[in-house]
Amino acid sequence: MTKQILVVNDDGITAPGILALISIASKFGEVTVVAPDKPQSGMGHAISVNSTIRINPVKIEGVKQAFACSGTPVDCVKMAVNILFKGKKPDLIVSGINHGANHSINVIYSGTMSAAMEGAIENIPSIGFSLLDYSIDADFSASKIYAEKIIKHALQHGIPAYTCLNVNIPKMENEYIKGIKVCRQAMANWEEEFDERIDPTGKPYYWLTGKFVNYDKGEDTDVWALENNFVSVVPVQPDVTSHKSINELKKIENV
Amino acid sequence: MTKQILVVNDDGITAPGILALISIASKFGEVTVVAPDKPQSGMGHAISVNSTIRINPVKIEGVKQAFACSGTPVDCVKMAVNILFKGKKPDLIVSGINHGANHSINVIYSGTMSAAMEGAIENIPSIGFSLLDYSIDADFSASKIYAEKIIKHALQHGIPAYTCLNVNIPKMENEYIKGIKVCRQAMANWEEEFDERIDPTGKPYYWLTGKFVNYDKGEDTDVWALENNFVSVVPVQPDVTSHKSINELKKIENV
Repeated sequence: MTKQILVVNDDGITAPGILALISIASKFGEVTVVAPDKPQSGMGHAISVNSTIRINPVKIEGVKQAFACSGTPVDCVKMAVNILFKGKKPDLIVSGINHGANHSINVIYSGTMSAAMEGAIENIPSIGFSLLDYSIDADFSASKIYAEKIIKHALQHGIPAYTCLNVNIPKMENEYIKGIKVCRQAMANWEEEFDERIDPTGKPYYWLTGKFVNYDKGEDTDVWALENNFVSVVPVQPDVTSHKSINELKKIENV
Repeated sequence: MTKQILVVNDDGITAPGILALISIASKFGEVTVVAPDKPQSGMGHAISVNSTIRINPVKIEGVKQAFACSGTPVDCVKMAVNILFKGKKPDLIVSGINHGANHSINVIYSGTMSAAMEGAIENIPSIGFSLLDYSIDADFSASKIYAEKIIKHALQHGIPAYTCLNVNIPKMENEYIKGIKVCRQAMANWEEEFDERIDPTGKPYYWLTGKFVNYDKGEDTDVWALENNFVSVVPVQPDVTSHKSINELKKIENV
């Protein structure tokens, strides 16, 4: 039977990255696209609880059905699964290809990865793809080769239950990429540097900026893999319990 | 030296829950409040990357400094740490008290818990508190008793590094609460039921609604603890790697 594949992203339905991903997903089945009608980078796992959501049909060549959604990336997945697929789950959700890195701690902030995480919560095989190039003119040719390999493998062999994949692709031509590494998320962070400006009435406002800092010297991390010209694949789960801390904390039961 | 405590939430700076938390935090040190200027429930780990952020001073009795922030709960933490504390980390971040449950999968969607998670990413001891009562008239008296016990313990004994606590309090009077249980996050989900309506021009729009379903029968979960009249405490970490899946996925390196 024809596979049903949902394509989402966080850069919005007009981003070149989603067109690259649609072109690959279409090789494996019937594609439905539900993507934000505006850029939704950094939206994390936000959902619309205080506002309404709309979806409007758009035309994308070679695609069964495509919709621009007024909500967040996670809203897109929820709307697609419930309204378009009517609760009958798609065979695969692919998110991206994001314009920019989503390795290490970025997975927490990323709308691309939160859409994939929402798929994992629904136990739908889900993969988020990100290219380490923020440019609107980013070259997705190597990304498409690896997206095809990884989607093919996922459809043939499955993905562990209630898990999604976080795939990052280094910014280089395919001949320089050394292959794929399955990794853990590097322990890293952003050192924020707010850019303070003054508006025409004399009041301050701020832009969030920052510098990425990797504290993690492990050679089994996604940051290490990418710095060494590998495509990184991190299995990601919605359980954020720090299981190793449970015993240490037990003494709080006696306060 | 006087402890520096940052109080945040996601229900907004006028919510009764944050006033309850401020009254407790004030017993332990000097309180700074940075909270959203409007409700930000369900914002997850969203940050403002495509828009500017403003903070405006407000007056709250007994508080050193308080600001209403135009951004998300995570923006509030980033702004406080970088602009107000100037990178010198507070001794403790407390988030809430949320009007409504943030147990199990809700931790992923919750602005309250994402603010605490942002503290964990910065390795600042951080605790999110939620009362299982959505009402604006919720009775926070038992919550305050447990918030005081848990804050006191956290300041005396610390919290595991790069970890925050997700504290949920059952909706009942203090005499019926049996104590505290340290738990793991229950595996649960929301079954969405979008409420479709028609606008005055004849076009559809949607409200996200849903029914909470707990699939997890374990007696070591937060849902079990709350159903059995305990306050639940789950240690939460920003590492979402599914470590147990890494080996299973290794074969994808050969595609």
